[in-house]
Amino acid sequence: MCHCLSEKPHEACGVFGVYDRSGENDVALETYLALYALQHRGQEACGIVVNEDGVMRSHRDLGLVPDVFSRDVLERLGNGQIAIGHVLYAAAPVKSRSSAQPLRISHSKGSMALCMNGALVNGNALREEFESAGAIFHTNSEAEIISYLITRERLRAPSIEAAVESAVGDLRGAFSMLIMSPQKLIAVRDPWGFHPLCMGKIGEDKIVFASETCAFDSIGATFVRDLEPGEIVVADREGERSIRTHCGNKGTVCVFEYVYFARPDSVVDGASVHLARQRAGAFLALEHPVQADVVVGVPDSGLDAALGFARQSGIPYGVGFIKNRYVGRTFIQPTQKQREDAVNIKLNPMAETVRGKRVVLVDDSIVRGTTSARIVRRLRAAGAAEVHMRISSPPFIGPCYFGTDIDSKDKLIACRMTQEEIAKEIGVDSLGYLSVEDVRKIACGAHTDFCIGCFTGKYPIDVPETKPENKFEHKIGHTSEE
Amino acid sequence: MCHCLSEKPHEACGVFGVYDRSGENDVALETYLALYALQHRGQEACGIVVNEDGVMRSHRDLGLVPDVFSRDVLERLGNGQIAIGHVLYAAAPVKSRSSAQPLRISHSKGSMALCMNGALVNGNALREEFESAGAIFHTNSEAEIISYLITRERLRAPSIEAAVESAVGDLRGAFSMLIMSPQKLIAVRDPWGFHPLCMGKIGEDKIVFASETCAFDSIGATFVRDLEPGEIVVADREGERSIRTHCGNKGTVCVFEYVYFARPDSVVDGASVHLARQRAGAFLALEHPVQADVVVGVPDSGLDAALGFARQSGIPYGVGFIKNRYVGRTFIQPTQKQREDAVNIKLNPMAETVRGKRVVLVDDSIVRGTTSARIVRRLRAAGAAEVHMRISSPPFIGPCYFGTDIDSKDKLIACRMTQEEIAKEIGVDSLGYLSVEDVRKIACGAHTDFCIGCFTGKYPIDVPETKPENKFEHKIGHTSEE
Amino acid sequence: MCHCLSEKPHEACGVFGVYDRSGENDVALETYLALYALQHRGQEACGIVVNEDGVMRSHRDLGLVPDVFSRDVLERLGNGQIAIGHVLYAAAPVKSRSSAQPLRISHSKGSMALCMNGALVNGNALREEFESAGAIFHTNSEAEIISYLITRERLRAPSIEAAVESAVGDLRGAFSMLIMSPQKLIAVRDPWGFHPLCMGKIGEDKIVFASETCAFDSIGATFVRDLEPGEIVVADREGERSIRTHCGNKGTVCVFEYVYFARPDSVVDGASVHLARQRAGAFLALEHPVQADVVVGVPDSGLDAALGFARQSGIPYGVGFIKNRYVGRTFIQPTQKQREDAVNIKLNPMAETVRGKRVVLVDDSIVRGTTSARIVRRLRAAGAAEVHMRISSPPFIGPCYFGTDIDSKDKLIACRMTQEEIAKEIGVDSLGYLSVEDVRKIACGAHTDFCIGCFTGKYPIDVPETKPENKFEHKIGHTSEE
Amino acid sequence: MCHCLSEKPHEACGVFGVYDRSGENDVALETYLALYALQHRGQEACGIVVNEDGVMRSHRDLGLVPDVFSRDVLERLGNGQIAIGHVLYAAAPVKSRSSAQPLRISHSKGSMALCMNGALVNGNALREEFESAGAIFHTNSEAEIISYLITRERLRAPSIEAAVESAVGDLRGAFSMLIMSPQKLIAVRDPWGFHPLCMGKIGEDKIVFASETCAFDSIGATFVRDLEPGEIVVADREGERSIRTHCGNKGTVCVFEYVYFARPDSVVDGASVHLARQRAGAFLALEHPVQADVVVGVPDSGLDAALGFARQSGIPYGVGFIKNRYVGRTFIQPTQKQREDAVNIKLNPMAETVRGKRVVLVDDSIVRGTTSARIVRRLRAAGAAEVHMRISSPPFIGPCYFGTDIDSKDKLIACRMTQEEIAKEIGVDSLGYLSVEDVRKIACGAHTDFCIGCFTGKYPIDVPETKPENKFEHKIGHTSEE
Repeated sequence: MCHCLSEKPHEACGVFGVYDRSGENDVALETYLALYALQHRGQEACGIVVNEDGVMRSHRDLGLVPDVFSRDVLERLGNGQIAIGHVLYAAAPVKSRSSAQPLRISHSKGSMALCMNGALVNGNALREEFESAGAIFHTNSEAEIISYLITRERLRAPSIEAAVESAVGDLRGAFSMLIMSPQKLIAVRDPWGFHPLCMGKIGEDKIVFASETCAFDSIGATFVRDLEPGEIVVADREGERSIRTHCGNKGTVCVFEYVYFARPDSVVDGASVHLARQRAGAFLALEHPVQADVVVGVPDSGLDAALGFARQSGIPYGVGFIKNRYVGRTFIQPTQKQREDAVNIKLNPMAETVRGKRVVLVDDSIVRGTTSARIVRRLRAAGAAEVHMRISSPPFIGPCYFGTDIDSKDKLIACRMTQEEIAKEIGVDSLGYLSVEDVRKIACGAHTDFCIGCFTGKYPIDVPETKPENKFEHKIGHTSEE
Repeated sequence: MCHCLSEKPHEACGVFGVYDRSGENDVALETYLALYALQHRGQEACGIVVNEDGVMRSHRDLGLVPDVFSRDVLERLGNGQIAIGHVLYAAAPVKSRSSAQPLRISHSKGSMALCMNGALVNGNALREEFESAGAIFHTNSEAEIISYLITRERLRAPSIEAAVESAVGDLRGAFSMLIMSPQKLIAVRDPWGFHPLCMGKIGEDKIVFASETCAFDSIGATFVRDLEPGEIVVADREGERSIRTHCGNKGTVCVFEYVYFARPDSVVDGASVHLARQRAGAFLALEHPVQADVVVGVPDSGLDAALGFARQSGIPYGVGFIKNRYVGRTFIQPTQKQREDAVNIKLNPMAETVRGKRVVLVDDSIVRGTTSARIVRRLRAAGAAEVHMRISSPPFIGPCYFGTDIDSKDKLIACRMTQEEIAKEIGVDSLGYLSVEDVRKIACGAHTDFCIGCFTGKYPIDVPETKPENKFEHKIGHTSEE
Repeated sequence: MCHCLSEKPHEACGVFGVYDRSGENDVALETYLALYALQHRGQEACGIVVNEDGVMRSHRDLGLVPDVFSRDVLERLGNGQIAIGHVLYAAAPVKSRSSAQPLRISHSKGSMALCMNGALVNGNALREEFESAGAIFHTNSEAEIISYLITRERLRAPSIEAAVESAVGDLRGAFSMLIMSPQKLIAVRDPWGFHPLCMGKIGEDKIVFASETCAFDSIGATFVRDLEPGEIVVADREGERSIRTHCGNKGTVCVFEYVYFARPDSVVDGASVHLARQRAGAFLALEHPVQADVVVGVPDSGLDAALGFARQSGIPYGVGFIKNRYVGRTFIQPTQKQREDAVNIKLNPMAETVRGKRVVLVDDSIVRGTTSARIVRRLRAAGAAEVHMRISSPPFIGPCYFGTDIDSKDKLIACRMTQEEIAKEIGVDSLGYLSVEDVRKIACGAHTDFCIGCFTGKYPIDVPETKPENKFEHKIGHTSEE
Repeated sequence: MCHCLSEKPHEACGVFGVYDRSGENDVALETYLALYALQHRGQEACGIVVNEDGVMRSHRDLGLVPDVFSRDVLERLGNGQIAIGHVLYAAAPVKSRSSAQPLRISHSKGSMALCMNGALVNGNALREEFESAGAIFHTNSEAEIISYLITRERLRAPSIEAAVESAVGDLRGAFSMLIMSPQKLIAVRDPWGFHPLCMGKIGEDKIVFASETCAFDSIGATFVRDLEPGEIVVADREGERSIRTHCGNKGTVCVFEYVYFARPDSVVDGASVHLARQRAGAFLALEHPVQADVVVGVPDSGLDAALGFARQSGIPYGVGFIKNRYVGRTFIQPTQKQREDAVNIKLNPMAETVRGKRVVLVDDSIVRGTTSARIVRRLRAAGAAEVHMRISSPPFIGPCYFGTDIDSKDKLIACRMTQEEIAKEIGVDSLGYLSVEDVRKIACGAHTDFCIGCFTGKYPIDVPETKPENKFEHKIGHTSEE
């Protein structure tokens, strides 16, 4: 379903950076195109900072990449040798322009721009520490906390990369981040490798970094390799070099990157997302077989798993829904509750496919259950004789501490109900989830382990007893789209 | 591919209308939701006119439905008993706001709003006739010509519907149109039934008309029936009644509605669009069999036919491309020619699906060949061993006179080359088109014949020797987005 | 006071046109600058049509000149040999974009653009006549009626100017208008010369027309002469020539052009507006002498008359109010009635000037009296010991039929009250109006008589018994900023 | 002349704050109206922060008050007990949204909003000190430096006002500022009183602060008193109280507040601005008498002095120019140099006033001389026989360190030329400046001394040898209207 209207878990953000030694001077446009390809990772806000001979020009705002960046804005950003960009997902409904990244700040030794994807476990503690020492904060973003940390280290470190190296030692949690100094572009992946971050090149003289490989395809770049968990890569005039003091872990990439977040045409830590989803569908077919006439997926993220289920089971694959490609964030919904079910504006069931049929309905997850129930009702209204739901991931039972916006426990249907109760609640004839064992196996070829904490409640690093609310939220408070 | 960036033929426009006797007063929102569902028929401009107790409030502008209609605008339109709406496709790149429909005019007996989908064969002749009689024109749109015709008839006719009935006798060509008078909503389908127009209801007291049934699904309306070719339906306080003086033809609906224009979840003149496309794929598999490993479609319009090809042939169906859902009309492309091929921002081939495989690539049509050639190059770059292209319609050899924007003959690749030459030009190992005989058979269940003039050069009604340019274009001339 | 917030009478519109034989090709920018200078004549909407080799490009919209015309828009209009432009004042609060002028239409013999300043006495009759003959109307504007008239004549006339000449014979009322055909620019002043229209030149090869001479100053043009009442001037490749078949009247220019409408730096029909206002003040001082300490004017239109009063009376001139230059149309007022008086956001009295003083307060008119009363209360609150109001025009007692938006009789304070009652109502110690005799004498040097119908109820041409409402208003009805 | 198009010196910013114990809850609208009245002090950007029960909602952006604050935005700001607002003048042409004030930050003990008018002499030093301690900066604004200072003090101070009191001791330069904590509103005027800051009330329960008294008039507030130089006023639930530890100086208010910056209807430190300007004109007439026929002022700031000159000299006062009230910042000028003089779009000379006359032309200052020269040429083109220029302030010979944007020395005409040379350069028959002695006398009744450093090079506090550039400018660098 349309991202912005669904109750899917959300991943926070995508990053891209380029260091160009070729003199081609096209870094602003390349960043723009790459952010377009990463748009699925965040639609709330976006930004680009371009570095021309040490001077940083920046533009960021609420909105999608094509809304925020016009040809005029790109021209005003001009060109340069380095650029970083960011797309933001934000959980809260009203957000300030000032939350957009990259953050650009000035400190003792010069200026810096920074953007990140992830969430810290010790963010609040660090902020308190800095505030006690007299720091002031303009935003609630963890990027600002990290900026302080790097700045503190920079005071005694011989170089920006040494400061970053030192700062990383103080951070606990998920952070794939890009840092731009007047002369350097630095890419950092947290020691657990929670979220992807990969390196590529265009020709011999341009080095690029991105959250996903699909960004490389969008600009004609070649994938070089994933950053290792804990790796810091520094690009400057001389070339690239790695700092590996924080390396050593095999890594535990978020398995939901494969299930839902990443674009199917991306390859994450060595495993194709598309194939992982097909494999999830195949495992599902093996675990939860059913007699049926057609397999359909919920667009877009359920389609690959549905195809995998169909192939494995031999039941024909069909097109179960048409998704309206034009329904965006400004869509005005009817307010009367009773009409909600009658209105198929976003997702219209294909009666020709399901009428009189026993239907296997494949989706990637169930969060609260409300959306699933509505989809099932629509399928039945379109004539489906039976609906067998298959979910290509295990039930959510725990919060995510690492940047994914999963509903709090009391809203998660799997924390409140048994699978039988859920099946009844959403109105299906049968329900099957992918098992925790099999979800570990979907990403065939991955050179990493997985974080599956949201399915097990066990996390790669110690987490607080309750998920920390951002206790500083009240300090900056509400804002009126500043 | 994304509509606005492709070289696909374009269909001009979608219409929707509602007459509400229920007192629910939700016609503006219903029209808005219906236009959303019809957005694929036209993305250049849109408009809604609401009639509250005889007073018409209107809003129209260049842009997509969500851009043109904010909550504020919908509120200002208010509510009423009748509304009509329109989405416009326009061939020319720069177009005036004043081209947007519905057109709202005032004449001797009151006011009127009108919108249409189609094109007249005798539009220029009628306009010349009116201009010789002293008429002035504000636009180049045929809606204005028809407004004059209805107004002329209205002077001596006892009612608006009698005027419309009389006017229809003077019109030759394609026109599915909606006319709103202070008291009535009138739906008209041309005597040849070139383009679809159907009738539905919400409850007992709301009658709705739309270009496609998917608009009914979007607002919870029930399909009642297609208008007959030549039928005029009048809705007013009393109910609905038909005027059938111009009926009698079986009708010749545009076959390209099934192949490309209509949304797959629509049922056009009794035949499911989705099934018609699957059948086109099956016929293709029978006509042009090939040894291959995977069948992929070009998103979105080639996917259904690819599924049909796969099912018939037994070759596995696969996901060959990922389409970027966020690339819209404001997308800024790199200008350097040499980079165009390297940039896969809109459509990224899925290497995992095609690498080392013999690929059947299904698309709905080839216009100039440039886009097809680029897609084939990308598939090969992603590792495809062989590419066998199958097109789910016959080659274009003639212009369309009835509202479809097909390139002029000299740009149509099939007018310049043999199929072998085309195969070579676009770089495929084999090429197969659906035959003219079989394209007539795809719309299983349709209660109409088909116009296939663009594939045969023979049309249901006499057409000029050369496709008439709009000879009045120069009169209104260029405009700067007025 | 700020135009848009006051209850002053409003004049409808300003026009500008240029025919350039010099090849300099700057007509779009010149029209833009001229409209800026004429902005005081209309702030609701504006538009420009540029004619390049017979092709007309147009842009018009609601808003002020700087809001409607960006550099981009001007560039898109391009350049050419002829351009006309218009600023619109519109009485009704919500207005459609389509009301903006110039109107651009296409007719039997080609295309045409037209804009006008004024109002017709026989507009409704003409519209009815055209509608009975089958005409359709897109707007409620009289420009569209005149377009029909010219088009009707054009069918049998040998040239556009012959058609215009013939059409003028059928029009009764006020109309200063500019008509652009593919080859010609035609300026027309109605036979009574109700509103100004003057001709100028830039160098030898550019002829310009404007509502006021201040537009010439703004573009470095030289004033040549006023058009005679009834004169038609045709500019084309050959030069300029006049058609004088409708000339003969001495003319009766609206005296309120001198009192309020025109810019002080304009010269209207031979008389300086600034001097006319100073003379009005001097006559006032002679007619209504008073013992006082300071003379202040209500900004901006009362300042000149105040200066004239001060010079004649010998009482010192002072600055009585500071006007906030930034308060525009989007100003948000406090809604609580009781606070309105406390808020001096638009016009703040200057306590230093009036404290303890006997103040002569000069304004150009009193319409409903509400604004005057508020201003007087503020002066007293700022410490004025006495307030003697002097009005530089006679009391309004009749409506205007010729393009000025004077309140209907029942709202005009002078129709309801004696001068003593008015003085009491607005709270002044004494009140004096300019006499009807003297208002005729203010425009020293004018080569025309004056229309003073709003002060006498006697008009230069027969008028209907009651002021005609636009009876076609309901036909086009409300519109939502289309 | 229009601010944005002139070469006048500019003053940086205006502030307003309100603490409402009445429960009326109208602080957002009051701040909006007050900023409107202060708009002349800064047109680049503006902002409001509203505090409702400790939660701060903020909106700020580039643009004028009416552009930045729509009714919707005001509603979203909601209401509360405290609000502060700011209008910004910014010297550099392209500026970031993030420069807008009030600044809202979060620190160890809560949140804070702050805005200021002025400039620090030791700003760079403080910033360096904070950066060395690990601070990061988001902007180049001194408000951020002061925020750090207050935050540092707050760590050990028992209250926010104690922190402010302590911080003020570390600041050198000009700062009229407002600070809002969750519970308090604090107004601070620097110990030298460089710029005005005054206190007023609405009823008994609302306390207001503003840069100028005209803001009080705009909202119906009553002036209470000016803040003393060095005074800190704290408003909270209990009432108001003053901290006077930094008081003692008599104060040296910027004399240019009287000459140009402040609105004529304001009373600054006890002296009426309007009267001060009239007195400046009278002194000029006494110092530099001339035989002439008319005295005219350059609108708007030269008008009061012209009136004073006329009264003192007995030469009649006249209207010399008409200023176009609609020419704003988006005005598009002709690019051809040679046309610049011909175009009188902004300021049109009134030929009727000056033709054949000996004209005294009064303006408030000459900066580079270019504008003055153009105005003089226009007067002569309009027929002036002689032009005698009188300037109501002494020649600029030194930079301003306290918030006024006076051109650097090499651009100041009075640093390069003698008065005779200047007179020749700008083309006048005679030239007279107000003397340094007399400029001290214009503000009759002021309870303060004056800073006249820009006329003498001697300043109330030690200043650097050369005017400090903002050495941190490069750190944040250019920005693309973020």
